[in-house]
Amino acid sequence: MRMVDIIEKKREGRELSKEEIQFFVNGYTNGTIPDYQASAFLMAIYFQDMTDEERANLTLAMVDSGDVIDLSNIEGTKVDKHSTGGVGDTTTLVLAPLIAALDIPFAKMSGRGLGHTGGTIDKLEAFTGFHVELTDQEFTEMVNRDKISVIGQSGNLTPADKKLYALRDVTATVSSIPLIASSIMSKKIAAGADAIVLDVKTGAGAFMKTEEEAAELASAMVRIGQLVGRNTMAIISDMSQPLGNAIGNSLEVQEAIETLQGNGPEDLTELVLTLGSQMVVLAEKTDSLEEARERLKAVIEDGSALGKFKQFIQNQGGNPEWVEKPELLPQAKYKFDVLADEDGFVTEMVADTIGVAAMKLGAGRETKEDSIDLAVGFILRKKVGDSVKKGESLVTIFANQEDVADIEAMLKENICIGKDIPETKLIYREIHS
Amino acid sequence: MRMVDIIEKKREGRELSKEEIQFFVNGYTNGTIPDYQASAFLMAIYFQDMTDEERANLTLAMVDSGDVIDLSNIEGTKVDKHSTGGVGDTTTLVLAPLIAALDIPFAKMSGRGLGHTGGTIDKLEAFTGFHVELTDQEFTEMVNRDKISVIGQSGNLTPADKKLYALRDVTATVSSIPLIASSIMSKKIAAGADAIVLDVKTGAGAFMKTEEEAAELASAMVRIGQLVGRNTMAIISDMSQPLGNAIGNSLEVQEAIETLQGNGPEDLTELVLTLGSQMVVLAEKTDSLEEARERLKAVIEDGSALGKFKQFIQNQGGNPEWVEKPELLPQAKYKFDVLADEDGFVTEMVADTIGVAAMKLGAGRETKEDSIDLAVGFILRKKVGDSVKKGESLVTIFANQEDVADIEAMLKENICIGKDIPETKLIYREIHS
Repeated sequence: MRMVDIIEKKREGRELSKEEIQFFVNGYTNGTIPDYQASAFLMAIYFQDMTDEERANLTLAMVDSGDVIDLSNIEGTKVDKHSTGGVGDTTTLVLAPLIAALDIPFAKMSGRGLGHTGGTIDKLEAFTGFHVELTDQEFTEMVNRDKISVIGQSGNLTPADKKLYALRDVTATVSSIPLIASSIMSKKIAAGADAIVLDVKTGAGAFMKTEEEAAELASAMVRIGQLVGRNTMAIISDMSQPLGNAIGNSLEVQEAIETLQGNGPEDLTELVLTLGSQMVVLAEKTDSLEEARERLKAVIEDGSALGKFKQFIQNQGGNPEWVEKPELLPQAKYKFDVLADEDGFVTEMVADTIGVAAMKLGAGRETKEDSIDLAVGFILRKKVGDSVKKGESLVTIFANQEDVADIEAMLKENICIGKDIPETKLIYREIHS
Repeated sequence: MRMVDIIEKKREGRELSKEEIQFFVNGYTNGTIPDYQASAFLMAIYFQDMTDEERANLTLAMVDSGDVIDLSNIEGTKVDKHSTGGVGDTTTLVLAPLIAALDIPFAKMSGRGLGHTGGTIDKLEAFTGFHVELTDQEFTEMVNRDKISVIGQSGNLTPADKKLYALRDVTATVSSIPLIASSIMSKKIAAGADAIVLDVKTGAGAFMKTEEEAAELASAMVRIGQLVGRNTMAIISDMSQPLGNAIGNSLEVQEAIETLQGNGPEDLTELVLTLGSQMVVLAEKTDSLEEARERLKAVIEDGSALGKFKQFIQNQGGNPEWVEKPELLPQAKYKFDVLADEDGFVTEMVADTIGVAAMKLGAGRETKEDSIDLAVGFILRKKVGDSVKKGESLVTIFANQEDVADIEAMLKENICIGKDIPETKLIYREIHS
């Protein structure tokens, strides 16, 4: 088999065999196929697409390129949740204890990575002492006993995907549905989940700007999941404005606690219940989404979800008392309010630019070497559709610096006030195939 | 400027500026743009094509990447001829003295390269002592005095094209009209010609299998030539069967001599007169193709073209007496005739496979390291459309080996005899824009 023939075959729009895809992934991972052949191949895929069968084979070949997490010692159906990424997305922090409170195992592998704010692990480190350096045995025992644990990401999970992603980034081959879908699904599958709920974001703050694009990606991933034997479904949800009110690590932890107490922002609560009830159904705890939703609401109301969160923090080295006393979590030195210049309705809050402002403030990483300031961020005082009066606060900036003029300017520019109430939507649709 | 943005722009089908194309060619030549970005870019060009303006800018940027031959000290309009390559193409050997005999400077830079037989230089080395290691001054003086000279290719002509060609070869991006056209034209322009006649081959033995494909490539090259200020036209000619009767280095030299004596094969003679008359018109020696053709015929008939060939051989170190005594040129030890198995008409002689058979016999190079046997090759005794009787010779094999069973088998398999006279065509059309 020669790589040049495989490139040509894809260039001509013909379907590649499982063996050809494995030849590429193995050869690229071990270095016998050079970057320049891989990038030409990726560009050919960009133009000629891949069939469902090819996408599934690419996904499995990337899974096989590295370690695969064995969760077979964990009892029950392991349901994972994945979001394609947005601004202020606190869902994992809320969903983890909520699902576990219903006796469904939440066995999550998580990483750090780049972004507007830190990853789940960064956020949880707002609890001093919290750590994810667990042995496989500790992790398994914790999930079997308490149904919840987060472990740090293995160094050698889907190395093919890591190498390909780095190449795609510099060769203008990122925005390809088959490549995005197989990249995400390979990581989920290697992480060992039996079933997967995908939260595919759409809107200005998402990679997929339109609902149609998001639905195409969602369908692609769901079909891969089904072809490789993992029960998978997707929700298309809004990311035209940030989710919830908090953007920032410690701030999002506090928002998660409020949501577990039943006092969270409406949109975050609704998305958590939507995703959560799908997870409950996939875990076969209930037959209907309605019943699942009722049970999730019940564990919020009776305090058992919050109790599960405390247990989780304690199990992994944090002080569970801080859950009731969030003022002990990292706090910023300074607060500044961004005030409305006029009366009207908030018509737009551009999610991605607000996310970039949070990163500039120190809440996220632009490069791997950057350190994160857990305390800083924003609390949105208004959301799209809210009425606002001149002089009212739109956002509170939580900063460890005295001068936030540039951040304030960015926020003002990206929060629009108009005379008409705009339409908003949180959940666009469910995708099952 | 970032290469990834240029790749994306082309991927989106937008037109690149002159500066963007220069940035790519310069960066790739000097190594600041890596192979993996270049190959993704080439594949994007494969799918999105280039405008005439982009093609001309790519051509000029490749010309500027290395040395440009200055023929300004040579008097008159320098007309170059280029063939896209075929089997048994002896036209250059005939055209050179023919054009020079009409007082039109023929100042050719030539290389060796890979192929079914050697290049023009290899063939001329059938005259022991013939060499192309000339100083620029010797070359210029020779052309000014006698109107004819061939010099070896400069090492640093269009290095960008060399590097890109090597990359295209292993990334399935060879067969792209804008890339083929700019590659050929950059070499012709760097070699200093004022006007260019292109012989674009079509048929089984050519890269462009159909007349339409050949015409598309020809038009692309002619338009590039016009945009960069070189008078350029193209002929589409047949390469479904080999051109002329001789395939092999010394054999082709002998055929060229016969053609200059007026005794050459009909098809070779016709193609030489067709290309030659276009060259005479581009050199502004005559206004009409008819007059040009008459003058070319005249220098064949009066012996001055053959005389020019002798002068050329002598000027560059060969023995001109060998022109009249071709038996002194390298001769093979063995001759074998491939005989017809049945009566009928020759319906097909698959040019490329016959070429490969010649290479296997030793007439050409498969890799740069291969040496060439100048004496070996084939003489076709029949051409497509000829009637043949069982037992008649179809081809004579000239070999320096006793066992040619595999070569004979290849030839038999690729020379078809049928009951109906097939249609044949030599010249398909002229392309002027």
